[in-house]
Amino acid sequence: MSDKINRVVLAYSGGLDTSVILKWLQQEYQCEVVTFTADLGQGEELEPVRRKAERAGVKPEHIFIDDLREEFVRDFVFPMMRANAQYEGLYLLGTSIARPLIAKRQIEIARQVGADAVSHGATGKGNDQVRFELGYYALNPDIKVIAPWREWDLTSRTRLIEFAEQHQIEVARDKRGEAPFSTDANLLHTSSEGKVLEDPWDEVPDYVYSRTVNPEDAPDAPETITVDFERGDGVALNGEALSPAALLTALNELGRKHGIGRLDLVENRFVGMKSRGMYETPGGTIYQLAHRGIEQITLDRGAAHLKDELMPRYAELIYNGFWFAPEREMLQAAIDHSQAKVTGTVRLKLYKGNVIVTGRRSPHSLYSEKVVTFEDDQGAYDQRDAAGFIKLNALRLRLLGRRDG
Amino acid sequence: MSDKINRVVLAYSGGLDTSVILKWLQQEYQCEVVTFTADLGQGEELEPVRRKAERAGVKPEHIFIDDLREEFVRDFVFPMMRANAQYEGLYLLGTSIARPLIAKRQIEIARQVGADAVSHGATGKGNDQVRFELGYYALNPDIKVIAPWREWDLTSRTRLIEFAEQHQIEVARDKRGEAPFSTDANLLHTSSEGKVLEDPWDEVPDYVYSRTVNPEDAPDAPETITVDFERGDGVALNGEALSPAALLTALNELGRKHGIGRLDLVENRFVGMKSRGMYETPGGTIYQLAHRGIEQITLDRGAAHLKDELMPRYAELIYNGFWFAPEREMLQAAIDHSQAKVTGTVRLKLYKGNVIVTGRRSPHSLYSEKVVTFEDDQGAYDQRDAAGFIKLNALRLRLLGRRDG
Amino acid sequence: MSDKINRVVLAYSGGLDTSVILKWLQQEYQCEVVTFTADLGQGEELEPVRRKAERAGVKPEHIFIDDLREEFVRDFVFPMMRANAQYEGLYLLGTSIARPLIAKRQIEIARQVGADAVSHGATGKGNDQVRFELGYYALNPDIKVIAPWREWDLTSRTRLIEFAEQHQIEVARDKRGEAPFSTDANLLHTSSEGKVLEDPWDEVPDYVYSRTVNPEDAPDAPETITVDFERGDGVALNGEALSPAALLTALNELGRKHGIGRLDLVENRFVGMKSRGMYETPGGTIYQLAHRGIEQITLDRGAAHLKDELMPRYAELIYNGFWFAPEREMLQAAIDHSQAKVTGTVRLKLYKGNVIVTGRRSPHSLYSEKVVTFEDDQGAYDQRDAAGFIKLNALRLRLLGRRDG
Amino acid sequence: MSDKINRVVLAYSGGLDTSVILKWLQQEYQCEVVTFTADLGQGEELEPVRRKAERAGVKPEHIFIDDLREEFVRDFVFPMMRANAQYEGLYLLGTSIARPLIAKRQIEIARQVGADAVSHGATGKGNDQVRFELGYYALNPDIKVIAPWREWDLTSRTRLIEFAEQHQIEVARDKRGEAPFSTDANLLHTSSEGKVLEDPWDEVPDYVYSRTVNPEDAPDAPETITVDFERGDGVALNGEALSPAALLTALNELGRKHGIGRLDLVENRFVGMKSRGMYETPGGTIYQLAHRGIEQITLDRGAAHLKDELMPRYAELIYNGFWFAPEREMLQAAIDHSQAKVTGTVRLKLYKGNVIVTGRRSPHSLYSEKVVTFEDDQGAYDQRDAAGFIKLNALRLRLLGRRDG
Repeated sequence: MSDKINRVVLAYSGGLDTSVILKWLQQEYQCEVVTFTADLGQGEELEPVRRKAERAGVKPEHIFIDDLREEFVRDFVFPMMRANAQYEGLYLLGTSIARPLIAKRQIEIARQVGADAVSHGATGKGNDQVRFELGYYALNPDIKVIAPWREWDLTSRTRLIEFAEQHQIEVARDKRGEAPFSTDANLLHTSSEGKVLEDPWDEVPDYVYSRTVNPEDAPDAPETITVDFERGDGVALNGEALSPAALLTALNELGRKHGIGRLDLVENRFVGMKSRGMYETPGGTIYQLAHRGIEQITLDRGAAHLKDELMPRYAELIYNGFWFAPEREMLQAAIDHSQAKVTGTVRLKLYKGNVIVTGRRSPHSLYSEKVVTFEDDQGAYDQRDAAGFIKLNALRLRLLGRRDG
Repeated sequence: MSDKINRVVLAYSGGLDTSVILKWLQQEYQCEVVTFTADLGQGEELEPVRRKAERAGVKPEHIFIDDLREEFVRDFVFPMMRANAQYEGLYLLGTSIARPLIAKRQIEIARQVGADAVSHGATGKGNDQVRFELGYYALNPDIKVIAPWREWDLTSRTRLIEFAEQHQIEVARDKRGEAPFSTDANLLHTSSEGKVLEDPWDEVPDYVYSRTVNPEDAPDAPETITVDFERGDGVALNGEALSPAALLTALNELGRKHGIGRLDLVENRFVGMKSRGMYETPGGTIYQLAHRGIEQITLDRGAAHLKDELMPRYAELIYNGFWFAPEREMLQAAIDHSQAKVTGTVRLKLYKGNVIVTGRRSPHSLYSEKVVTFEDDQGAYDQRDAAGFIKLNALRLRLLGRRDG
Repeated sequence: MSDKINRVVLAYSGGLDTSVILKWLQQEYQCEVVTFTADLGQGEELEPVRRKAERAGVKPEHIFIDDLREEFVRDFVFPMMRANAQYEGLYLLGTSIARPLIAKRQIEIARQVGADAVSHGATGKGNDQVRFELGYYALNPDIKVIAPWREWDLTSRTRLIEFAEQHQIEVARDKRGEAPFSTDANLLHTSSEGKVLEDPWDEVPDYVYSRTVNPEDAPDAPETITVDFERGDGVALNGEALSPAALLTALNELGRKHGIGRLDLVENRFVGMKSRGMYETPGGTIYQLAHRGIEQITLDRGAAHLKDELMPRYAELIYNGFWFAPEREMLQAAIDHSQAKVTGTVRLKLYKGNVIVTGRRSPHSLYSEKVVTFEDDQGAYDQRDAAGFIKLNALRLRLLGRRDG
Repeated sequence: MSDKINRVVLAYSGGLDTSVILKWLQQEYQCEVVTFTADLGQGEELEPVRRKAERAGVKPEHIFIDDLREEFVRDFVFPMMRANAQYEGLYLLGTSIARPLIAKRQIEIARQVGADAVSHGATGKGNDQVRFELGYYALNPDIKVIAPWREWDLTSRTRLIEFAEQHQIEVARDKRGEAPFSTDANLLHTSSEGKVLEDPWDEVPDYVYSRTVNPEDAPDAPETITVDFERGDGVALNGEALSPAALLTALNELGRKHGIGRLDLVENRFVGMKSRGMYETPGGTIYQLAHRGIEQITLDRGAAHLKDELMPRYAELIYNGFWFAPEREMLQAAIDHSQAKVTGTVRLKLYKGNVIVTGRRSPHSLYSEKVVTFEDDQGAYDQRDAAGFIKLNALRLRLLGRRDG
């Protein structure tokens, strides 16, 4: 808390925590605060944020409110989905994938306004601090980083609210008490953790869910949709061309309605502890299964299996905050190379929490009915070839068997 | 079709195909046929098989009918489930995992009765021939293998039935025509492929499903169950201790009722082509998610992530028929080493195709509420440590940024 | 040996074996033979080959003799070296990497001359048949492949020579007897195997080596050289710019002189058996160590370790003949992505079989004396950061220790 | 520097640095210091250490001097060698593998004497602090760790010597000035780094080497030896049975004489920076090549290739200090499983820096001259099998070629 800071770009939501941070930065560092608020599809009005920042003394030209939804889906979510990334087998990385974009934009703004520091509101126990700061340092190795939650003495809710009241920071009535859990939201997902979720034996209470209906309350009739892909990315829903963000938005609406994409998970954080979270990824869940569906007929086995083997590492890198690391980029290069012909249409049925791929077709299909058929294949495949194939695959096992048998 | 064979052990189901094979072997090789029929939980009466074999001239002491259900689940399904194995991200390997056990038992019987050959009814286009024969050769490098489908000239259904009729082989009325698809079943799953399933754009017809109700017809009320694990294996359902096969049987019943475990997949066969299959794995689907649930609180991150990275290779080995290969055993040794404390209870909700983990607890839990809590953790974790952690993780990215920025 | 062949492109060396094949193809298939002879740096005069082909009745416009040395090194050897590929930890893949280029050129010529088949002289026990034929099929799925060694009845040396004499094929005097071993050579290496090398306990006799002096006979004085790299590829020797083939040629000369790059290996063939070979890769051995040297200061740790983990798979793909497979291309895309800044100079000392990297420097070095120094680093690195780094890396191990201790 | 410490176990060499630390701990923490000095084969007299510790006021029963050479080689070096571990392709991990043993013994002594803390003399920039402390925490999660180099203000050589003189700590004359580089030694290797080695372009000066003669000064005559292995571990040299430590000691003597095992490396430290080191691993270099040699004829391809793929990760874990982590143990379980038949004899030639495997034989050899031979194999291998093998391996490439060609 020592180096002289002149100007700091704060990732600012306008909520209680980052409002307190804004004030604390001004006070503690005697520096000018620049606010940056991103629309990543979290579903909140952002214009009120401008007024709050102004009231806190931020210069109008230092208030940045950017709609990043298209960039988010096009340059972050979709590339990640090309990998079918799932952390620890289940989690679609909705929070992880948003952090590098926020970090990138903060560093751009810092350059633009001549700031020497950046700041965020992530706590000292979580992954987000790592993701933000690895992004900052990768993109500007000399930037100063202020992480108030690791520095200040506002270590309890009571003290935070006292500070807010002392400094005329508006505290929404429902924020006075302890929130029963904490959330993060963007176009890909909403995550919830903490408090009422802390015992992994306790069922997640109904009121924690916000993005999806309970499957039990979803429509009794299934709904069938199609998703079109081009070169590995979704481009249309039910035949209608949509931009990346528009497609994900539409899938979110479908997922919400049919109770799709809920996940109750105990996961391993990069900082070394286990945590329990609840995720809702309605559209992303549909999208990833659709993507797997189109890959099934357009990807060669060698490419598909290599992708499957690389995926856990790739997902771990994103989870741990290494989006801007060379090894993530190398894996992306490999993955992207595989997607050139991942083009076609997948049909899915949505029903009370289920996403069921019921058909896939492609102008670049590698599926050959002629070869695989149970009927006469007219010489497309000579069954006698299998004998030699098996014999040579078995040779080393036979040599082993002779030795060890 | 030349080497003199004296006695051959045939994997015999009593169905039309293997009945024809039995006769054909006797005729073509002028050899004694020993039949082996395994109860792997496929849900068929096996005693009629004895009569059929006898009628075909097999000596009573050469008719082997074994109940292998416990061995199947205990020594094959459960070890595989410890790995959370999924082929191509989705398939639970129900057919693949049964083949090595059948091959092992055939070789044992061959030794017992002094047979010099084994035979199976798998076709020349599929994976099963590979799985059977790699098993045979690994366990007895000098065994002779007869694969009639790759040898004979009964290449159409009509000729097969002609042969059957010529030789007084009973042809069930419903087998006279072409079956609309082909199936394989055991305690873990039922698979269906071929004919009506051959176009991957066409939806799987309702009548193909046999092990599960349609999720739409499943009960409207969810059902909550618990599964207990010890050292990585399931041991009890709803608190009642069950043997491996009994546990899987009970989970199958639950899965059937709630429409769980259907999968429509286009997969890559080892022999080089794509095929479309439909799988029903009701109990296995529940079991694997339960296993993942208990691992979430009992496995360390390092172990969990290594398992995730090894899994695709492990699944591929089983799919391709390399159960008895040293590299599968090496991976199994690594996986088994991780399971020593995978003990505890998982609670799951079953509802119309959904399997939802809603809680997990363990006497060996690594989850520490004290460390992770949003509340004051009384020094269990020092948030300032995160600063150094991030700084050193970022160091190489900063050096990169300085060079490339 | 049935389908009607009109015109076949034969990989033709002009030696006894492929001369016999030429004649046998004409006779057996009653087809026109087109010969293709590549200069890959094997160090033999190729013009005599033209006369031999003409004498065998090949039309002048059907005799192709191509100097592929630059393409070989630039498009095959160098990309492979970017990966530091070593099969089974030791073998630099000198034979494996030449096969796809030959296959590619044969298919091009087949297209050009309207041939419907290709043929090669590799035996049925080795890897080369696989490498050639996977290349052929990948590049032209409908090509017919003739592999005489798997088809004909000339299964002994005696019968081969009889056939040659019957057909006026010149048999060099030293080819009349059995060669004491078999070799393959190109600009990257010479391999030797068979006969006198077949017992892996017997030392390789001196007369088998052809590309390098015995280290014991190499100069008593070491020689120091520098190799310059740009974007991962070698571009200069001792400051003098050289084309890829010229650089490898010059390194071969240095390696030969100093007894560098001999390898006595028992390896695992793709077809399932072990074989014992002796390799001489003089220039390639120097080149790969130089490449590792320049990577040491220019590659980030994340990129370097990912490369190390991918390498065995990459090497296996090349060894097994999957150069044109999508998974090899995906790995290449990842590897190539890492090489953008692999630029600089490596100094090496060559001495009696040793290649010793003694220095490396680069305009893109990531090595920071300022950070690493034992001296005062003036704040470039804060040692206290290490405490937090260790604490968080240890957290999961401490939670484990508490549970299991 | 706050928590009250009662008794601390210090890893104590008796050299200047740890002598200063001993005194500093007594003074700074007002605590009792227990010294632990390990004989890991570093080649120094250890009894003088006892007198030094006594003079510094350590109670006789608190002075631990243990000969750990056999345990070191048997339980750490040999298991690691079973993996053929090389960090970043080249480094045999001589320092890394010693740290967990020291940590383990410190924790044992702490338990024995009722100490509540441990301390080491590693600096805050290196890997050793991480290796020590991860070991401590894994084995005793509640131990306190004191790392003086990260805490104290003796940040220059001058101040360190001043402190020593103030406290009557003997300073060897040759330690008064700055050492031109720093070293670590044990039975496996000697490492050198820092100062004169800091510019990676400068050649390592001759006087830095201490464990090996310059290859140029090594004998002009090669020396041939044999090493016997049993179940993956070395057991005899030239037919004479030796204990693990005795075998490594004897190989070290041979390596020293023939100038074997020098390595000049720029490596990536876990703490994020690159450093340049020089390693001498004379016996280990011979041993690892011998081990690879015996594996060549006794390991199946599947096992060998899996080992090669797992190795980089395994080596990284050891380098980074995760010896006691579950994922290292899992990999060890896989590796050890592969070694059951790695038994036999390897013959090697040592000559001026070269280690040349010239022969290997084993009662469990998988090498089959009968199968591989160029001569008539009498049916051991049917070359026609290769046609089917290739056809099915090519099938997916042909389907790809048809689509993309």
